[in-house]
Amino acid sequence: MTYRIEKDTMGEVKVPADKLWGAQTERSRNNFKIGAPGSMPLEVVYGFAYLKKAAAYTNCELGVLSKEKRDLIAQVCDEILEGKHDDQFPLVIWQTGSGTQSNMNVNEVVANRAHQIAGKVIGEGEKTIQPNDDVNKSQSSNDTFPTGMHIAAYKKVVKTTIPGVIQLRNTLHNKSLEFKDCVKIGRTHLMDATPLTLGQEFSGYVSQLDHGLKALENTLAHLSELALGGTAVGTGLNTPEGYDVLVAKYIAEFTNLPFVTAENKFEALAAHDAIVETHGALKQLAVSLNKIANDIRMMASGPRSGIGEIIIPANEPGSSIMPGKVNPTQCEALTMVCAQVMGNDVAVTVGGTQGHYELNVFKPMMAANLLQSAQLIGDACVSFDVNCAQGIEPNHAVIKELLNNSLMLVTALNTKIGYYKAAEIANTAHKNGTTLKEEAINLGYVTAEDYDDWVKPEDMVGSMK
Amino acid sequence: MTYRIEKDTMGEVKVPADKLWGAQTERSRNNFKIGAPGSMPLEVVYGFAYLKKAAAYTNCELGVLSKEKRDLIAQVCDEILEGKHDDQFPLVIWQTGSGTQSNMNVNEVVANRAHQIAGKVIGEGEKTIQPNDDVNKSQSSNDTFPTGMHIAAYKKVVKTTIPGVIQLRNTLHNKSLEFKDCVKIGRTHLMDATPLTLGQEFSGYVSQLDHGLKALENTLAHLSELALGGTAVGTGLNTPEGYDVLVAKYIAEFTNLPFVTAENKFEALAAHDAIVETHGALKQLAVSLNKIANDIRMMASGPRSGIGEIIIPANEPGSSIMPGKVNPTQCEALTMVCAQVMGNDVAVTVGGTQGHYELNVFKPMMAANLLQSAQLIGDACVSFDVNCAQGIEPNHAVIKELLNNSLMLVTALNTKIGYYKAAEIANTAHKNGTTLKEEAINLGYVTAEDYDDWVKPEDMVGSMK
Amino acid sequence: MTYRIEKDTMGEVKVPADKLWGAQTERSRNNFKIGAPGSMPLEVVYGFAYLKKAAAYTNCELGVLSKEKRDLIAQVCDEILEGKHDDQFPLVIWQTGSGTQSNMNVNEVVANRAHQIAGKVIGEGEKTIQPNDDVNKSQSSNDTFPTGMHIAAYKKVVKTTIPGVIQLRNTLHNKSLEFKDCVKIGRTHLMDATPLTLGQEFSGYVSQLDHGLKALENTLAHLSELALGGTAVGTGLNTPEGYDVLVAKYIAEFTNLPFVTAENKFEALAAHDAIVETHGALKQLAVSLNKIANDIRMMASGPRSGIGEIIIPANEPGSSIMPGKVNPTQCEALTMVCAQVMGNDVAVTVGGTQGHYELNVFKPMMAANLLQSAQLIGDACVSFDVNCAQGIEPNHAVIKELLNNSLMLVTALNTKIGYYKAAEIANTAHKNGTTLKEEAINLGYVTAEDYDDWVKPEDMVGSMK
Amino acid sequence: MTYRIEKDTMGEVKVPADKLWGAQTERSRNNFKIGAPGSMPLEVVYGFAYLKKAAAYTNCELGVLSKEKRDLIAQVCDEILEGKHDDQFPLVIWQTGSGTQSNMNVNEVVANRAHQIAGKVIGEGEKTIQPNDDVNKSQSSNDTFPTGMHIAAYKKVVKTTIPGVIQLRNTLHNKSLEFKDCVKIGRTHLMDATPLTLGQEFSGYVSQLDHGLKALENTLAHLSELALGGTAVGTGLNTPEGYDVLVAKYIAEFTNLPFVTAENKFEALAAHDAIVETHGALKQLAVSLNKIANDIRMMASGPRSGIGEIIIPANEPGSSIMPGKVNPTQCEALTMVCAQVMGNDVAVTVGGTQGHYELNVFKPMMAANLLQSAQLIGDACVSFDVNCAQGIEPNHAVIKELLNNSLMLVTALNTKIGYYKAAEIANTAHKNGTTLKEEAINLGYVTAEDYDDWVKPEDMVGSMK
Repeated sequence: MTYRIEKDTMGEVKVPADKLWGAQTERSRNNFKIGAPGSMPLEVVYGFAYLKKAAAYTNCELGVLSKEKRDLIAQVCDEILEGKHDDQFPLVIWQTGSGTQSNMNVNEVVANRAHQIAGKVIGEGEKTIQPNDDVNKSQSSNDTFPTGMHIAAYKKVVKTTIPGVIQLRNTLHNKSLEFKDCVKIGRTHLMDATPLTLGQEFSGYVSQLDHGLKALENTLAHLSELALGGTAVGTGLNTPEGYDVLVAKYIAEFTNLPFVTAENKFEALAAHDAIVETHGALKQLAVSLNKIANDIRMMASGPRSGIGEIIIPANEPGSSIMPGKVNPTQCEALTMVCAQVMGNDVAVTVGGTQGHYELNVFKPMMAANLLQSAQLIGDACVSFDVNCAQGIEPNHAVIKELLNNSLMLVTALNTKIGYYKAAEIANTAHKNGTTLKEEAINLGYVTAEDYDDWVKPEDMVGSMK
Repeated sequence: MTYRIEKDTMGEVKVPADKLWGAQTERSRNNFKIGAPGSMPLEVVYGFAYLKKAAAYTNCELGVLSKEKRDLIAQVCDEILEGKHDDQFPLVIWQTGSGTQSNMNVNEVVANRAHQIAGKVIGEGEKTIQPNDDVNKSQSSNDTFPTGMHIAAYKKVVKTTIPGVIQLRNTLHNKSLEFKDCVKIGRTHLMDATPLTLGQEFSGYVSQLDHGLKALENTLAHLSELALGGTAVGTGLNTPEGYDVLVAKYIAEFTNLPFVTAENKFEALAAHDAIVETHGALKQLAVSLNKIANDIRMMASGPRSGIGEIIIPANEPGSSIMPGKVNPTQCEALTMVCAQVMGNDVAVTVGGTQGHYELNVFKPMMAANLLQSAQLIGDACVSFDVNCAQGIEPNHAVIKELLNNSLMLVTALNTKIGYYKAAEIANTAHKNGTTLKEEAINLGYVTAEDYDDWVKPEDMVGSMK
Repeated sequence: MTYRIEKDTMGEVKVPADKLWGAQTERSRNNFKIGAPGSMPLEVVYGFAYLKKAAAYTNCELGVLSKEKRDLIAQVCDEILEGKHDDQFPLVIWQTGSGTQSNMNVNEVVANRAHQIAGKVIGEGEKTIQPNDDVNKSQSSNDTFPTGMHIAAYKKVVKTTIPGVIQLRNTLHNKSLEFKDCVKIGRTHLMDATPLTLGQEFSGYVSQLDHGLKALENTLAHLSELALGGTAVGTGLNTPEGYDVLVAKYIAEFTNLPFVTAENKFEALAAHDAIVETHGALKQLAVSLNKIANDIRMMASGPRSGIGEIIIPANEPGSSIMPGKVNPTQCEALTMVCAQVMGNDVAVTVGGTQGHYELNVFKPMMAANLLQSAQLIGDACVSFDVNCAQGIEPNHAVIKELLNNSLMLVTALNTKIGYYKAAEIANTAHKNGTTLKEEAINLGYVTAEDYDDWVKPEDMVGSMK
Repeated sequence: MTYRIEKDTMGEVKVPADKLWGAQTERSRNNFKIGAPGSMPLEVVYGFAYLKKAAAYTNCELGVLSKEKRDLIAQVCDEILEGKHDDQFPLVIWQTGSGTQSNMNVNEVVANRAHQIAGKVIGEGEKTIQPNDDVNKSQSSNDTFPTGMHIAAYKKVVKTTIPGVIQLRNTLHNKSLEFKDCVKIGRTHLMDATPLTLGQEFSGYVSQLDHGLKALENTLAHLSELALGGTAVGTGLNTPEGYDVLVAKYIAEFTNLPFVTAENKFEALAAHDAIVETHGALKQLAVSLNKIANDIRMMASGPRSGIGEIIIPANEPGSSIMPGKVNPTQCEALTMVCAQVMGNDVAVTVGGTQGHYELNVFKPMMAANLLQSAQLIGDACVSFDVNCAQGIEPNHAVIKELLNNSLMLVTALNTKIGYYKAAEIANTAHKNGTTLKEEAINLGYVTAEDYDDWVKPEDMVGSMK
């Protein structure tokens, strides 16, 4: 491999000649060989591209950067956003906790690529654009990284998570309407209980996701606050007046998302409670989705020796040894995602607690976990929707049989003969392996006519229908 | 001890003669000897008292309960709420996961105490009021327990947590104003950085708590939804028409809190995402408080060999062996509370995932954790406020010395001579143990006059002041 | 209330006249009003009683304490261990993180009670014994609290947790033998799979608990290490030579448990990895127990519309609205305990990470969580054993029916006709709602004789029996 | 792209013509578009390669597979282990929870590649080797996946984690010896305390890691147990006699690691407590490492306005805005890793609790988290060692100054004049801003000579040296 020499304030560094990055990126590559290379999410890099462009526009508008430099910076940022330089960001999450080196990675790539665009050869001549003094002008890692991670996170949540959850929610809502007359046995404590409709059961899932979506949306205001303009410690040192508001306006324009400057820059650098807050809502969705997926696989269990009330699509052979087996694999993928999100929540929480003085230095880890959770929930909801939820069908024969067997239909008699006599009927039927009706009559508490009149499953699901 | 015989649908049970509870409470006492007795929070019992009274009023208004019974039930509920029967609720959290036995505990105490009020002897004669058919009329454990826990949780959050956090927030806000001209060194990565004011530093804490309070308030809408009226599985079986809306209205009236009937009763029984949601916000506050308490104890460290920029009240002798030692004990209590809340969040989350079909049976555990977290955060904020925050004072001499030593004041030169020359000055001063000014002049980059003009800490804190 | 005046190095404090505690305890009561009073576990207080007595004996033997003082201290410690002074320890967990105030609480109670025993009136005259110079001699809070918490934790684990788990393990083992010939359908992914015996299923639970017990026992070596002798920062300042080894020997003798002095006192004060380690093993047991309890409630589900393969004891009426309902309440209590332990593990972990320099100041919180988890697991195992596991019976009729229905018996044909033809048989039977045998013959892959010969559930459970 | 047709028991599937995988892999690719492709760790694939080869040898030795097939299978497995087919395993973690599709991915690749090796064209003619009947002979996904994950996990722990931790431990141990005479101030509660040596401080870190390593090694016995031979549900259906023991022997031979057949196959399939157990120990190491890294960055804080007792290597420019700044970046990377491991522990724990009946279906998620944690800890320890720990040097001037300032040296007087008088001296010096010696003499408690004789920091660190 051939190398060129790049310099930073600590001295010279050999960098692979065909790469756009510079000295500090290379130092980081060598100093942090932790896990697979390139683990810093590209979404964060793209977040940086938006903000570097916005900073260039703002600096120019406020008179501290030339139009030429602005346009060069903006052009490279656009190239990055088009995915043309994805292989120029080799750093890992497990670097400095402020993400300084990823900030410098972007600064260096922009500066070197701008040099190329200006028709020069990287490593030769004065840099057309300086990584620190131009690309990073009016910025610090301490305000750019949180800005980049808010951009990345916000975008992921509104473009991937929320649409994914809504897609599944809508299917479940349609199923809820479709199944509105399908009366089935209810189960509490996993035990037979009074009836409800399959549609009602699904409406509960819809309500969970509706509440979860609302909770997630509640967190977006905090996430829309950008640290940019705080620079090193939140005071905005070395920024021109009006910079913070304007740069947020540009970011909002470029991303088409409602970003605003953070009302308090000290909080925005030293704490990442916004990440904790949004991840908390993702975790809540994980809790809801786990419940839903669990219910569906239990109701689909069988085909002959389980519950078997619903039928889910058979997507793959289920077993390498048991011929003809079909499994609730989408439920499994989804619940694994949920467990991961619950774990990620603790990682994010722990990181969030450990800001010290003016800076929280768990930024890359927090960003990576949030992005992973947001992606996984969105993707898993779509996968579950397409490959499972849309195809759910009731197994009417099984549903009917299990409903009519249930001793808990006796509950309808409470208001007629009281809880205690009703219990006696149920207990006797259970002991004797007989039907409620037989024992109701035997015990002399109810006539056959009254029984048929009073104990109708379809009348027991009514008030909330 | 003397006993009387109580009965339920399973048969007879011996109950201590002087106790108001009945057969099912006694069964539970014997069947769940797990941890200390009486661990079910009294707040939940009081939540039950509100809802039992509201149910009695609603049942009466809707024509299914007599005025006499309503008034007897209401009278006992009021006694419970006055704390007169606190020793009649001996059950533990670790019982049936629907809290059925605590519901029955309340039903039994209300019925037996009503019998007394009616002038009769417990255990003698027909019960004046039946635990199941009267006290529990139009109810199930499955909708009463979540209702009771929402009442308890909502109340704890708005009466204890929020006021406690606000009290601390207001003190920190006042300190922020008080310290607005106290310029000090900033620290990022725990290392010397550019200056800010102590007031700015504290404003970050205020912003954290403001965001946290908003996040917590965002969760109250979900928590205000009551399951009552769903009965066994969410269908509202055995409730009179209009019951759910009316009973929520009565609860709102009796508690003076804005409770409403849950929009979807299936969700309200089978999932406790509202508890997960509110606890998530408590966890976010724990994250914020942990950061604040950590900063304060680091800034107060010393007195002679630490940072020592602030002075906190000396409340107790700090050591049993080191004479004259004083410690940041309120910070320690608060951060221990934060760690507990983070752990509780996982317990609540795990419980929340495990609803099955029509019922989540982790209710008592979830309720207990939420109540503990809400109490601890509220109490710890008040304790921290009164015994620490209010007494915080800057140690101006130390602050000034540490500020003037800092090499990071060099950052002010970036916009004058560029990042790279500024770095050279700082590096040289660091290597030689000299001052920035000396090296700035030695290196020939800045004149003495310019240096004094350009490097003024008080001018470096400005834009965000 | 009447008061007396107590003094410490900060001045005078009014203490309730009828209490044995002194100035520092009273300060702590007033300064830490967080959660319910008295939350510091009594087990920790007893741990202190052991170590104070052991320190007195050691100090005496090494010539720095008189026999008279030794015996007075020892006598009060014995009284504490007999439970005679339980109401003299009013402090909360949420105090100074070193537990200094609980150490002083013990020192003060011992000193004042010794004064009484010596025939004097508390608060009058020179103290017969000084809290700091005598009771606390050769000690610091920093080494006493971790010692007290190790004593408390070790004792709880070996006296409550391990015996509780073993009791349940033995019942499950007996059930495993009892059910060794009960062939039933297996289930993977909740779906019908090849058969096994109910005994084999239970043997898996036994193996989980055996591994869990071994993991827990593996942690005891670390937990048996005592910090005592490290004093303030681990150097053993102000201790006579040989003190640390001897005091551990006395503690071992008094507790009859194999305690030793910690090999490194700096670790023993500054980190509580031993607590993290032991709690990690408790969490592993929680994971195992959760699995077991879940399986049992699923297998017991019904009685008519669930799986219903086993019958568990009916201990209480299961519902306040559904007459005759019986629920798997012990499974619910146990799984709630498991969720709590999982949460506590995070609290302990977070506390464990936050030691600073020579001291971890999350001690009381870590101790309380470990003690709670250890108690809950032990108690819940016994409760589950007595009220559920011992009474588990197979429902042979259901087991047989579900077994014979299963299409997965086809797996036995793999080695005869290959996986692909076997799959065709199963798929066809599933589609047509027919039996495997019918389709095996229809498809011409197997004769009726061969089918009967090859597909015998009882021959499919063999190799691991 | 060109495609060929592959078949499984569900029908035909189009597969990219240049890929070795078959129908089921392709189905999984299409059905689980969750997160980035190829997220299933290669280590698990390699684990499969070992076990497939071992199964082939065992099947052959036990007479159920021909030598020709054995050798073909073994040859492909060796190629996989050489990394020649890394791009043939495109599946994600978020698939079926048994990992069936990854098992089939391996089966299909082995079968197709063997077909090539046999000189044939994939997709043409009868398969030389069948994925299910040959490659998967005597196996099920249910026993292969846990076997593969145990192989991968064990290897990662012993080849990456343990050596990494030991490398750091040895450096810290050397530093501990190197610094054994460097007396410094101790700190408890972050506050000045009695002295110790820097070597003693580091010895505490060594002790933490020693205990952590022992805890990790304690878990290896459980992890060495292999599920293979249990097949579908643990009974070993369709395996030849003696298969399980022999196949473990072959795996041990091929991997050169001490694997054994699991004592209970039901546990080995239905629970993954071994993964929970090992990850628990990794989490304990994370707790320890977090403490160590925190201490080091606090002690290195400054350079002028922090603690500054040690100097750590300056590896990169620390700030994009603050010239000349150097940060404790290795501490930050390491503590981010620790937070991630703590989060992963919860994910693994949650997954571990949710086994149902004969199978836990959180396998891929649990495996991936364990492998990530084990890798990150090992790598981060090496990175921290090379780039930070090895270069740590005391800043003797600062250490001496901070030591001599400390008021806590007064503790040495406890045994001479008692705790209370000593406290008076310290309090007075603190109030007056004077030295201990001055006030000791002023107060008349100690003569100058005695003071100099009694208060010697170097004599206060002795007993534990």
